Amino acid sequence: MWGGRFGKGPAPEAEDFTRSIHIDARLWEQDIAGSLAHIRMLAARGVVSPQEANQIVQGLLDLKRAIETGKVMIDPSVEDIHTFIETKLREKVGPVAGKLHTARSRNDQVVTDLRLWTRDALQDVQLSLHMLQQTLIDLAEEHLQTLMPGLTHQQHAQPVTLAHHLMAYFWMLERDHERLSQSHHRMNLSPLGAGALAGTSIPIDPIITASELQFNDVIPNSMDAVSDRDFVAETLFVYALMMTHLSRLAQELILWSAPEYGFVELDDSYTTGSSLMPQKKNPDVMELIRGRSARAIGNLTAMLTTLKGLTLTYHRDLQDDKTILFETHDFMLPALNLTNSVLSSAVWNTERMRQAVIGDYSTATELANYLVTKGVPFREAHKLTGQIVLSCVQQGKPLEALTVEELSAYHKTIGEDVLQALQPEHAVASSLSQTGTAPLVVQAQIELARETLKNHRRLGG
Amino acid sequence: MWGGRFGKGPAPEAEDFTRSIHIDARLWEQDIAGSLAHIRMLAARGVVSPQEANQIVQGLLDLKRAIETGKVMIDPSVEDIHTFIETKLREKVGPVAGKLHTARSRNDQVVTDLRLWTRDALQDVQLSLHMLQQTLIDLAEEHLQTLMPGLTHQQHAQPVTLAHHLMAYFWMLERDHERLSQSHHRMNLSPLGAGALAGTSIPIDPIITASELQFNDVIPNSMDAVSDRDFVAETLFVYALMMTHLSRLAQELILWSAPEYGFVELDDSYTTGSSLMPQKKNPDVMELIRGRSARAIGNLTAMLTTLKGLTLTYHRDLQDDKTILFETHDFMLPALNLTNSVLSSAVWNTERMRQAVIGDYSTATELANYLVTKGVPFREAHKLTGQIVLSCVQQGKPLEALTVEELSAYHKTIGEDVLQALQPEHAVASSLSQTGTAPLVVQAQIELARETLKNHRRLGG
Amino acid sequence: MWGGRFGKGPAPEAEDFTRSIHIDARLWEQDIAGSLAHIRMLAARGVVSPQEANQIVQGLLDLKRAIETGKVMIDPSVEDIHTFIETKLREKVGPVAGKLHTARSRNDQVVTDLRLWTRDALQDVQLSLHMLQQTLIDLAEEHLQTLMPGLTHQQHAQPVTLAHHLMAYFWMLERDHERLSQSHHRMNLSPLGAGALAGTSIPIDPIITASELQFNDVIPNSMDAVSDRDFVAETLFVYALMMTHLSRLAQELILWSAPEYGFVELDDSYTTGSSLMPQKKNPDVMELIRGRSARAIGNLTAMLTTLKGLTLTYHRDLQDDKTILFETHDFMLPALNLTNSVLSSAVWNTERMRQAVIGDYSTATELANYLVTKGVPFREAHKLTGQIVLSCVQQGKPLEALTVEELSAYHKTIGEDVLQALQPEHAVASSLSQTGTAPLVVQAQIELARETLKNHRRLGG
Amino acid sequence: MWGGRFGKGPAPEAEDFTRSIHIDARLWEQDIAGSLAHIRMLAARGVVSPQEANQIVQGLLDLKRAIETGKVMIDPSVEDIHTFIETKLREKVGPVAGKLHTARSRNDQVVTDLRLWTRDALQDVQLSLHMLQQTLIDLAEEHLQTLMPGLTHQQHAQPVTLAHHLMAYFWMLERDHERLSQSHHRMNLSPLGAGALAGTSIPIDPIITASELQFNDVIPNSMDAVSDRDFVAETLFVYALMMTHLSRLAQELILWSAPEYGFVELDDSYTTGSSLMPQKKNPDVMELIRGRSARAIGNLTAMLTTLKGLTLTYHRDLQDDKTILFETHDFMLPALNLTNSVLSSAVWNTERMRQAVIGDYSTATELANYLVTKGVPFREAHKLTGQIVLSCVQQGKPLEALTVEELSAYHKTIGEDVLQALQPEHAVASSLSQTGTAPLVVQAQIELARETLKNHRRLGG
Repeated sequence: MWGGRFGKGPAPEAEDFTRSIHIDARLWEQDIAGSLAHIRMLAARGVVSPQEANQIVQGLLDLKRAIETGKVMIDPSVEDIHTFIETKLREKVGPVAGKLHTARSRNDQVVTDLRLWTRDALQDVQLSLHMLQQTLIDLAEEHLQTLMPGLTHQQHAQPVTLAHHLMAYFWMLERDHERLSQSHHRMNLSPLGAGALAGTSIPIDPIITASELQFNDVIPNSMDAVSDRDFVAETLFVYALMMTHLSRLAQELILWSAPEYGFVELDDSYTTGSSLMPQKKNPDVMELIRGRSARAIGNLTAMLTTLKGLTLTYHRDLQDDKTILFETHDFMLPALNLTNSVLSSAVWNTERMRQAVIGDYSTATELANYLVTKGVPFREAHKLTGQIVLSCVQQGKPLEALTVEELSAYHKTIGEDVLQALQPEHAVASSLSQTGTAPLVVQAQIELARETLKNHRRLGG
Repeated sequence: MWGGRFGKGPAPEAEDFTRSIHIDARLWEQDIAGSLAHIRMLAARGVVSPQEANQIVQGLLDLKRAIETGKVMIDPSVEDIHTFIETKLREKVGPVAGKLHTARSRNDQVVTDLRLWTRDALQDVQLSLHMLQQTLIDLAEEHLQTLMPGLTHQQHAQPVTLAHHLMAYFWMLERDHERLSQSHHRMNLSPLGAGALAGTSIPIDPIITASELQFNDVIPNSMDAVSDRDFVAETLFVYALMMTHLSRLAQELILWSAPEYGFVELDDSYTTGSSLMPQKKNPDVMELIRGRSARAIGNLTAMLTTLKGLTLTYHRDLQDDKTILFETHDFMLPALNLTNSVLSSAVWNTERMRQAVIGDYSTATELANYLVTKGVPFREAHKLTGQIVLSCVQQGKPLEALTVEELSAYHKTIGEDVLQALQPEHAVASSLSQTGTAPLVVQAQIELARETLKNHRRLGG
Repeated sequence: MWGGRFGKGPAPEAEDFTRSIHIDARLWEQDIAGSLAHIRMLAARGVVSPQEANQIVQGLLDLKRAIETGKVMIDPSVEDIHTFIETKLREKVGPVAGKLHTARSRNDQVVTDLRLWTRDALQDVQLSLHMLQQTLIDLAEEHLQTLMPGLTHQQHAQPVTLAHHLMAYFWMLERDHERLSQSHHRMNLSPLGAGALAGTSIPIDPIITASELQFNDVIPNSMDAVSDRDFVAETLFVYALMMTHLSRLAQELILWSAPEYGFVELDDSYTTGSSLMPQKKNPDVMELIRGRSARAIGNLTAMLTTLKGLTLTYHRDLQDDKTILFETHDFMLPALNLTNSVLSSAVWNTERMRQAVIGDYSTATELANYLVTKGVPFREAHKLTGQIVLSCVQQGKPLEALTVEELSAYHKTIGEDVLQALQPEHAVASSLSQTGTAPLVVQAQIELARETLKNHRRLGG
Repeated sequence: MWGGRFGKGPAPEAEDFTRSIHIDARLWEQDIAGSLAHIRMLAARGVVSPQEANQIVQGLLDLKRAIETGKVMIDPSVEDIHTFIETKLREKVGPVAGKLHTARSRNDQVVTDLRLWTRDALQDVQLSLHMLQQTLIDLAEEHLQTLMPGLTHQQHAQPVTLAHHLMAYFWMLERDHERLSQSHHRMNLSPLGAGALAGTSIPIDPIITASELQFNDVIPNSMDAVSDRDFVAETLFVYALMMTHLSRLAQELILWSAPEYGFVELDDSYTTGSSLMPQKKNPDVMELIRGRSARAIGNLTAMLTTLKGLTLTYHRDLQDDKTILFETHDFMLPALNLTNSVLSSAVWNTERMRQAVIGDYSTATELANYLVTKGVPFREAHKLTGQIVLSCVQQGKPLEALTVEELSAYHKTIGEDVLQALQPEHAVASSLSQTGTAPLVVQAQIELARETLKNHRRLGG
């Protein structure tokens, strides 16, 4: 491919080290699509004749079908997919194949392929994300009244509902959804026409190829076009943060399905057993998601670290962008789908959740608020409540076990109505501030979420 | 602050480890602003009386002035800035200060302060970024005709102009600008009203506080509100990628100012000398930017790694979000400003750049394109050119030194006009494809960039 | 400092960006120590006269005392600590101070200071680590018989003892201890004499300075000496892995002190309360350790990323090695000490631990092993046990509730002695394989650990 | 495998997500070795009969040969390699195969396999490292007198020799060599006998298996044994730092082979050409090494991040340790070998290097030292030299062009001998301090390095 400049070929071990076909083989379809657009543009601009273009187009379409149907297998010993396709095309149509590379370089070709691939990848991920969000809403609606301990510092803080808890994840993922759209929009630009780095003197029209490939526009600067991998770094960040969210949820499910919590039982289909301990039911899928979030972070680190020392324009360091991106994508997509399946198929032990808020002092805040409504300044109410709780803790007595008499001894404003304030159901139902855990407002939150889902638009659609 | 629950106070070494005032002291203004909005809302909703609210508002405003004028100094031995301000307020206005914390928790208070701070930070960064982009455009306009080698793999590939090269950085930074706007928009939501995690039973109105603090909206879910640090992670990513861009540019300037390149001389104001070697003029500022980009990447890693294992809602791990964010911001902003100053004050050695494209075979592509325009299929043209270059290299002869006779011996279509094709100026001027390096099209690129700059709107404005 | 080469001084914002005295001020003692060794060597080699050397030595010693006693304060507006000390020395002894920098450069001076500092840092850390290991052993000895669930996948797997569990951390930390020693040894070499990068023509003797500063040897290559920061990267790795270990232990303690586990109550001195929820007792110190482990990982990433693109020798990027190292050290040391205090002062709820292994099927493995001892091939025994457990789970019945009759229905070899096999105490006591959880063998493990501790030698001692 | 506990099997997408055979297939040999040791020990201890053991041993050996010869192919649809081998064994020897898993769990089995693999990996890497060090020494010896500019801040500082420069890399790599040995020693311990986590009641002898597998010892604590992946993290760190070193060297070679430096020409076998620009000779192999160092850093980050949140003992997150480790190893080993080949086959342009120190003011330090030897205090000598250089720079005149008259005008002590001091050859030859660049002392340095190489011992040998 490199023409006549070299006295001898590469050493076999150098070929092994630089070969990328095991990674970029999956770009074969994008490579053919890019070539089709390019040759058609060349013909439209009169750079090649209609006959030549036609031969090449036919050759490419034949090759596409042959690969699809398995008649042509991708040869793993070739340097990369671009070389493979060019070679096969030449076998089919002869020397005219050499015209395809007119006014094009590997540099703009490779990154065009990768942008086309990333576009599809982001669409797939966003769709799976959307479906997971849907599941969260559905579950939340079912569990509007399901009480559970709300935690800070892994300690019981105030009672909340499972609906409210799950909806927190909905909004995390909604931010991811928005980031996916914005990254997609920023990425969906055409580098074709940039050539090796400087553009070309051949009278091409990059707008035609961009349009044929459904890119939104052309990258305005050819040196940026071949050098830029920000879209890979950004995709990896969006993925890493999304994996972080799934990891947090996985951590919840791992704990909730531990016997000490017992809030949920994961379905057999998404758990595994042990070879030595037959009683085990392990949340392996969730653990792998948690673990793979670490790899997503590592891969983001790798990409940024790769970029930071590079001058313009293309350097071979950039070849591994695909390795990193494909690897991350290949667990990102199933992680979303599996989280969805795990949540959908789980059995929620609402009784255990309700039990967990008994005697856990988590209505202490409500007791303080009760005092506030009676006119006690908050800091004083807070201090007083602290004393009451301390006394209960020392006696090993739940807050609910106190009588009105015992309570009113602490402050004269305390009356009969205090008992209701100590009930978790009441505490939850009272958290009526706009974003709070009261079923009434969570219902509104869910409606807002449903509206948000409806406004999701298909990427690139 | 924690009320009467505890038998004894924290150990001094635990206090030292958990204290954050050396970090969060800089949030004092945001903390007061948040408190002002909160107490006014409480009064508007009748939760506190107008008189009480007035006392607290006056106390806060007095305190603000006292800190501004240095009459009150922030005490570094207090746990955090929130405690400090609450304590000082109590000293000023007495027990009524205790009402300020009604329907508010440290959890929503802290993150409100941080969002307010981040909002300003993003604005400052975006403004500096805008000015750097302006400088790049201005420089590009000056150097529309300045030839220099365009590199791939650090090897000479094709001649380009300095204008074109610098504009590649403009577009990188433009993506950063867009990301800053989008991150800002996603971040600018109010957590106030979330309380510790569950909302509150006190009849507050989070929309009032959000509006007073100029947030776009209220975070819909109280658990998400106190737990979410995605906006920190996202800011750190946007910063890390921006630092990566500045690092790439720094690497260019470090090389260009090395004697081997000699393309630019950095101004004395932004370089330093050596204690042992008086002839040295070191690009320290650029080196520090390059180095600090590594810290930006490390800090992003730290934040994502912190988040990935946390269940809902608040955990103390999150305290270090500020350490990481402030540290990164504190080099991000000067890195932008200094890059701007370094570029503005540099002296460009255009003669050395022009010399660098003499005899470097970088018009070989043009020779191949010349053959293509004569009807030779590209791959053949490419191979032929390779043979010509190889022969030149073996004779130690530049491409420009070949005569028409020597050249036409390689292919019969080669005529007199080939000599022009081998001139770098001609090669550059011919790269007329829409995104190419020809001055004519770079001029249009610059106009597009100017238009883009004009459409920049002040964040939050 | 840079002599007469420059037409004008640095811009103020460049000075701010490059200034490091707020970071390297803490190297003042190391800087004086290095200078003392250097000037004494210069005198010994006749490069300076005894009188000159004496003046400088006296000046340095005076300065040292003055800083120690607070008579001289470090000026935060100076560029760095080295400049500060040189300036102060000149004020004291006049122009002869200029001889101190003979045959020395900032490049070898700075890294000498940092190696001296790191040496002390590693010693301090290793001592704290040793004491934490001691505490683990002591606690283990107390809890040789304390049963608790042994977990895999956060699920109950087999009963173990608290002693065994804690000793697992002992061995983790022992690996850290060994790494600290080896890193210390690799680091403790003298760069002095390397000059800027090339050595010097002045007849110095680097062995004298190395010996005076108690370095093990001289770094053999001057270019490596000024360029190498591997010892920083390695220290950061050893710290990051150690923090990871403390984070794992912190995660245990956070869960164990959650009400769902309730295995331990952390002392009030190392926990904090909540401003809104007075009943809370939050494991903040443990959470901060867990969070700071993420920063340790990020800082390691930053250092490696800084190094990877640098050619030889010194680049200003390296200045931030200190920022990163000091920051990490400043939480590493208290993290060890606080973990020690938290463990020592915690109250262990052994009753809750024992309760946790009731009815948790964690003796199923013992049931399988029982069958194996009766001659049933393991895989069959395992399958059979699985069926028994499944049947129990379906009936909501613990394994211990099965009668001999019910059990023997599954396999004819099952006899009376099976009941004992189902007792957690028996299961634990039977795990007599050399590394197992039986008190008898854990006692031996503890003795091995005590022996290991005894063999710890003071770093550099 | 999981016995009768489960009502239904895993969902296909869960199987896909959890399957690891595409990664762990390469552990097949280690898995068989571990099983052979285990069954022999079981027989020695009378847990299985000699006949049973014999059948299993024969089965395993047959299977080993069958895989080696390709008669049995590893089935990519099985969950993991351990299951595959167990299944195949059962096909060969029938139900007795079920006895192999007596007193063993996947947890100790998997990590035994990985330690065996890592042991070989470290040996291979260390050998390649050793050979690269050898090459550096040989090259250094050839280039003892080859002058080149010694750089700080990428600026010319002082002349050095190529020998000295290359030897700096030797010592970097020597530190890596030592770390490999120490990591190997710390890693080479046997986890077998730990079972799932608690050891076992079956009377095994872990010392027998450890010894048969040539481990140094047994891991003292069964919970640590199955949970510990520190050896993976440590290997990844040693690899990441080594890749960082190779990346630094790659960066040197990339620059040195750029036309602006022209110090070296890389052999055609280790460079590649361009599809559009036939004159290019790109240092792709070096660029990929530089890029892959970023992945090594990312993979280290991933591993530490995975570990930091995990309580004891085994969690499925740990499964990806192999993915990360194998991926890194697979570029680590060729990176060493290729660096070796690239260096060995490169052509060094010593004339260009010598030219580069002409007129570059890099003997200014020697001029200052000259003045020092004449009794001028260093700081004054430095300042004076600075003025001389500044004057030269302003006149565009090299330092070597100054006459004795011009020079002595600056200071009366300057005599005829100053001219020699300004010669690069003289400057280099004078840097006689123990670690300096003078050929005489670099020769000694090389001898020390040869001695060091001789003392390298084969890992595990």
